[in-house]
Amino acid sequence: MNISVAILGATGYTGAELIRLLESHPHFDIAHLGAHSQAGKRAGEVLPGISGELASTVLAASDASIPDHVQLVFSALPHGAAAESVKIALDSGKKVVDLSADFRHKSHDTYREAYGAEHPCPELFDEAVYGLTEFSRSDVVNARLVANPGCYPTSTLLPLVPLLRGGVLNSEQIIVDSKSGASGAGRAVKTSLLYCEVNEGLSAYGLPRHRHAWEMEEWASGFGQQHVSIRFVPHILPMSRGMLSTLHLSGDKPETWHNILSQAFAHETFINVLPEGQLPSTQGVKGSNRCDIGIAVIGTKQAVVVSCIDNLIKGASGQALQNANVMFGFGEAEGLSTTALWP
Amino acid sequence: MNISVAILGATGYTGAELIRLLESHPHFDIAHLGAHSQAGKRAGEVLPGISGELASTVLAASDASIPDHVQLVFSALPHGAAAESVKIALDSGKKVVDLSADFRHKSHDTYREAYGAEHPCPELFDEAVYGLTEFSRSDVVNARLVANPGCYPTSTLLPLVPLLRGGVLNSEQIIVDSKSGASGAGRAVKTSLLYCEVNEGLSAYGLPRHRHAWEMEEWASGFGQQHVSIRFVPHILPMSRGMLSTLHLSGDKPETWHNILSQAFAHETFINVLPEGQLPSTQGVKGSNRCDIGIAVIGTKQAVVVSCIDNLIKGASGQALQNANVMFGFGEAEGLSTTALWP
Amino acid sequence: MNISVAILGATGYTGAELIRLLESHPHFDIAHLGAHSQAGKRAGEVLPGISGELASTVLAASDASIPDHVQLVFSALPHGAAAESVKIALDSGKKVVDLSADFRHKSHDTYREAYGAEHPCPELFDEAVYGLTEFSRSDVVNARLVANPGCYPTSTLLPLVPLLRGGVLNSEQIIVDSKSGASGAGRAVKTSLLYCEVNEGLSAYGLPRHRHAWEMEEWASGFGQQHVSIRFVPHILPMSRGMLSTLHLSGDKPETWHNILSQAFAHETFINVLPEGQLPSTQGVKGSNRCDIGIAVIGTKQAVVVSCIDNLIKGASGQALQNANVMFGFGEAEGLSTTALWP
Amino acid sequence: MNISVAILGATGYTGAELIRLLESHPHFDIAHLGAHSQAGKRAGEVLPGISGELASTVLAASDASIPDHVQLVFSALPHGAAAESVKIALDSGKKVVDLSADFRHKSHDTYREAYGAEHPCPELFDEAVYGLTEFSRSDVVNARLVANPGCYPTSTLLPLVPLLRGGVLNSEQIIVDSKSGASGAGRAVKTSLLYCEVNEGLSAYGLPRHRHAWEMEEWASGFGQQHVSIRFVPHILPMSRGMLSTLHLSGDKPETWHNILSQAFAHETFINVLPEGQLPSTQGVKGSNRCDIGIAVIGTKQAVVVSCIDNLIKGASGQALQNANVMFGFGEAEGLSTTALWP
Repeated sequence: MNISVAILGATGYTGAELIRLLESHPHFDIAHLGAHSQAGKRAGEVLPGISGELASTVLAASDASIPDHVQLVFSALPHGAAAESVKIALDSGKKVVDLSADFRHKSHDTYREAYGAEHPCPELFDEAVYGLTEFSRSDVVNARLVANPGCYPTSTLLPLVPLLRGGVLNSEQIIVDSKSGASGAGRAVKTSLLYCEVNEGLSAYGLPRHRHAWEMEEWASGFGQQHVSIRFVPHILPMSRGMLSTLHLSGDKPETWHNILSQAFAHETFINVLPEGQLPSTQGVKGSNRCDIGIAVIGTKQAVVVSCIDNLIKGASGQALQNANVMFGFGEAEGLSTTALWP
Repeated sequence: MNISVAILGATGYTGAELIRLLESHPHFDIAHLGAHSQAGKRAGEVLPGISGELASTVLAASDASIPDHVQLVFSALPHGAAAESVKIALDSGKKVVDLSADFRHKSHDTYREAYGAEHPCPELFDEAVYGLTEFSRSDVVNARLVANPGCYPTSTLLPLVPLLRGGVLNSEQIIVDSKSGASGAGRAVKTSLLYCEVNEGLSAYGLPRHRHAWEMEEWASGFGQQHVSIRFVPHILPMSRGMLSTLHLSGDKPETWHNILSQAFAHETFINVLPEGQLPSTQGVKGSNRCDIGIAVIGTKQAVVVSCIDNLIKGASGQALQNANVMFGFGEAEGLSTTALWP
Repeated sequence: MNISVAILGATGYTGAELIRLLESHPHFDIAHLGAHSQAGKRAGEVLPGISGELASTVLAASDASIPDHVQLVFSALPHGAAAESVKIALDSGKKVVDLSADFRHKSHDTYREAYGAEHPCPELFDEAVYGLTEFSRSDVVNARLVANPGCYPTSTLLPLVPLLRGGVLNSEQIIVDSKSGASGAGRAVKTSLLYCEVNEGLSAYGLPRHRHAWEMEEWASGFGQQHVSIRFVPHILPMSRGMLSTLHLSGDKPETWHNILSQAFAHETFINVLPEGQLPSTQGVKGSNRCDIGIAVIGTKQAVVVSCIDNLIKGASGQALQNANVMFGFGEAEGLSTTALWP
Repeated sequence: MNISVAILGATGYTGAELIRLLESHPHFDIAHLGAHSQAGKRAGEVLPGISGELASTVLAASDASIPDHVQLVFSALPHGAAAESVKIALDSGKKVVDLSADFRHKSHDTYREAYGAEHPCPELFDEAVYGLTEFSRSDVVNARLVANPGCYPTSTLLPLVPLLRGGVLNSEQIIVDSKSGASGAGRAVKTSLLYCEVNEGLSAYGLPRHRHAWEMEEWASGFGQQHVSIRFVPHILPMSRGMLSTLHLSGDKPETWHNILSQAFAHETFINVLPEGQLPSTQGVKGSNRCDIGIAVIGTKQAVVVSCIDNLIKGASGQALQNANVMFGFGEAEGLSTTALWP
């Protein structure tokens, strides 16, 4: 029997991507679509990519009660707004995958520093599992609440953790220069996200310290079992989807790092370490749940590692579904593609 | 037991899209990838979107023999080059879906006029079925050779045929103004297709008469059972995928046309007639096998009909798979999405 | 001595383009920048393309009084909002080039039909000169108030008028299929103009009848001295600047039309009739005040005419400056480029 | 009296940009356009952005002799090919601005290492002036041969040199992460530069060591008067023009660096140090000769400096003209814009 799921925040870009993925999933059925300002409209009026019955579904208000038979809630609400809804869902016995940042941190202090606000329900911090699936699987399987990682941390931690665990990195000299397509900024209606302001434009933002820097450091340190500090600079560029992180790294024997990465991910469906000498492109992962990783040794103590994901899939909704598959005992790759929509 | 298939011309854009679709298809297995100039390389060197075993597959030469157990050949070779390979495949007992123009015409004269060359095997014209699935299903089911329609004709004929059959159109005053993303021009390495020559550019081409005009007229007349003449102007614009055709139409009672279209496609999975007053966008169909159709009445005798497809899917590889599903008795929608990759 | 000018609505896209053009103009000096919601900010905070002193200029409120020494006002305010400001400027003895639609029509009824509102000062209709410079020069030279044409009408009327005057067109069967870059929609902050909603998307809009259809018909009839009716369908596509209009035309001896167009524009700096057999691209005119025109004969009674402009220059701010040059007796091409920023 | 100039390699992107700039320059006249494979065609057939007489100019062969009255040659030929033509031009008494890399290095060894080839005329190395105008002015004024800097080095050296001279940088820990629009790769006809392969794609390339790394280090060391080592990673992204370099820097008192940069460029027309807290975008410089620089302090010893240029203007043809202005005693800013074509 299939599992009924709800999506909160269904009309944003990650919500839309969840709908796409879940619609063709063999074991999950969409039973509830919650929206905020768009509540009351038919889903098809707001989301151009869907058709048929799905398009006719009326969007529920964000505070509407979720049907009892729903067993899993995906929350694609913004940070701050998500926490309350997550709590309500948990209290009514549902499992939750939360795509916001609300449960990604283990300490209230860090959350406060990164997000500049008090957290409404820090009592859930302990229970929440940070769902970077490849490194969290054993905890996700029993979790009631999974905090889905941010896009920048996902693209950074995947190549970083094995190198940290391998003990080869200078963990105080990590520079991450990331570039994101515009969908990473969400569907917010503001001047800076208009087509004509993004097209043919490229800029850095979020300095001196983007919120995801705290998340990266916390989990690089956690998964990597050492203190890690990261200089992180994000950029936005004119493409819809796609994220590339360039890791400027120092450490020992960089000529061995390709092998460390290859070993670490040898049995991972979604992590693709490219042959030596090859560097990834965001084109290669668009529409897939893959993370492509390439490495170039550039000195006796230095290497550049480049990773690419589709920010809306492995960086958000795809990883959320990957976690949900684990939580409900389905095949981890069920409903997720390893092949890009190319070109 | 699954059906083994071969793809000829696997490294072009339609070839790549066939690979993507077939890879996740439950009943077809890719057994052979043929290429021309790239033969001998691993598929992953040439196609960035794939990974794993598939990426390691070595590309066969275009004249390499196709394994015996292959029952179906998709030919994504260019027109002219396709015909011979199609003949060889048929002669060895395989079925064929040909994505080129080589078997789309019923008369050698028309082919010669449109393509400026003698056809190498016109004896196959009679047997070939023009596979605009929604109107050809009963013939496709028994076909050995399906000629997959061109992208422009697909986007044009789908909305046009029901109106012709309804007897409401002035069939001598049809103007089709089409706009295609750059992938419609294929993966040809020429200056005019460089990024910097396409980006921020828009132009008409193919005048006075694009080859697809013959195809449109032949099949509009055939499916519509009346003589049809079409003025056709194609354009290329800066996007990778997507095709929009604007049909400037005259005829009787245009206020009834929305109903004619809705009725005609009421039971079609992939044809989505939008509610009155709504016009489609290529964004709504990207990555799906859908054709979205909208209509606006603009006078007592005039209407504008707009249709959108993903040129590489419903306009090429998706429709090819739809035909293959019919040929082998699988669900027609198997392996094909009705939801777009949006945004 | 230089002429001091004011720009109202300086922070929109046409306002920004006026600033760029005027800044390097030898005879006009920018003396006043008016803005609405951005008033009080430095210009450089809102307009990324400028630097230096200009960037430090504080934006005046839209109702702030314009300095006495200003002799010319460019109004880039939205239609409806422009009329009042225009009247005030005229009353204080200044000349005005109005880029809105407020003074493009000669009858209050047409304005009301097209814009769905009462006009605040129809008494100025008679005085306003419709400034399609190539056809209006003799009136513009003495005008106090020039109504700068819309972008779609500019791209359509330039090739259409000579053919109408030549008496060769069937003036009841004109179909104009236009495509515009996103800047044509202005700097309005709405979901449909977000990068991710425009990129990789193409759609028709404004049906059944876009406001510019009235303008086109009125001035095609006026300049062409016959009754003209036009079926007009605009589209928006993913590029920042550029407009291409495809005119599907019928009439007599289309093989003579290239000559008619060439003759008509033989001495025009900004109108570039391409050699026979060549079709224009928006890339060829981006950043210039040029209109490129190509023609293809497609039947004994039919031809396709294609015209390209930069919608923000010849379609708006460039033509406004061209008119201003005429009004003040400067060289008509002063400060305007005939070479595109390519690629 | 005006100076007659020749452009060699006129049909590439930097050649086209030189044409655009020179065409509206008050003191230079284009007297000769040399091309390679396109020789014999009219310039307008190959370059869509021009019109009129200029478009009718017939392209000379690359080895055709340059008219005697030409006093200045801009060579936009590829490296390797440029040197010979430069020598011939110098020998016939002309001055040269060479946009290739052929004369950017002072040692044959470095050239050989970076370009993997013997240099055909290393005897000219001593005479060549590296024309980063803001730091080379006094040498450029008397130069017969100016080596125009590469785009990546220009965007990097402009912010780097003042900080090096200020003695505040750790000059062994400089990381430059650069991102370039596709025109930076030139008009080469290859698969990787096709629209569909660049659009919606982002990738790093040129590792382990891009040729411009040598140039950066040589001139950072030279202008900065200390040994400098740079880790440099370039990327290509889907936009036509624009380059952004992110400099990850360490050193002393980063809170003083904004002031150092502001002071250094206080009197420079084309260098725009943004107010503290503001970061540049490539949109702000497109079509202009400006370099916009922003800085963010991110630690007690660390800062990020971001610089933006239009790679075809300040990164190539604009700087070439700036140098030519200096060589011939014209105003350095003559014919060059400080305002971007925005949006």
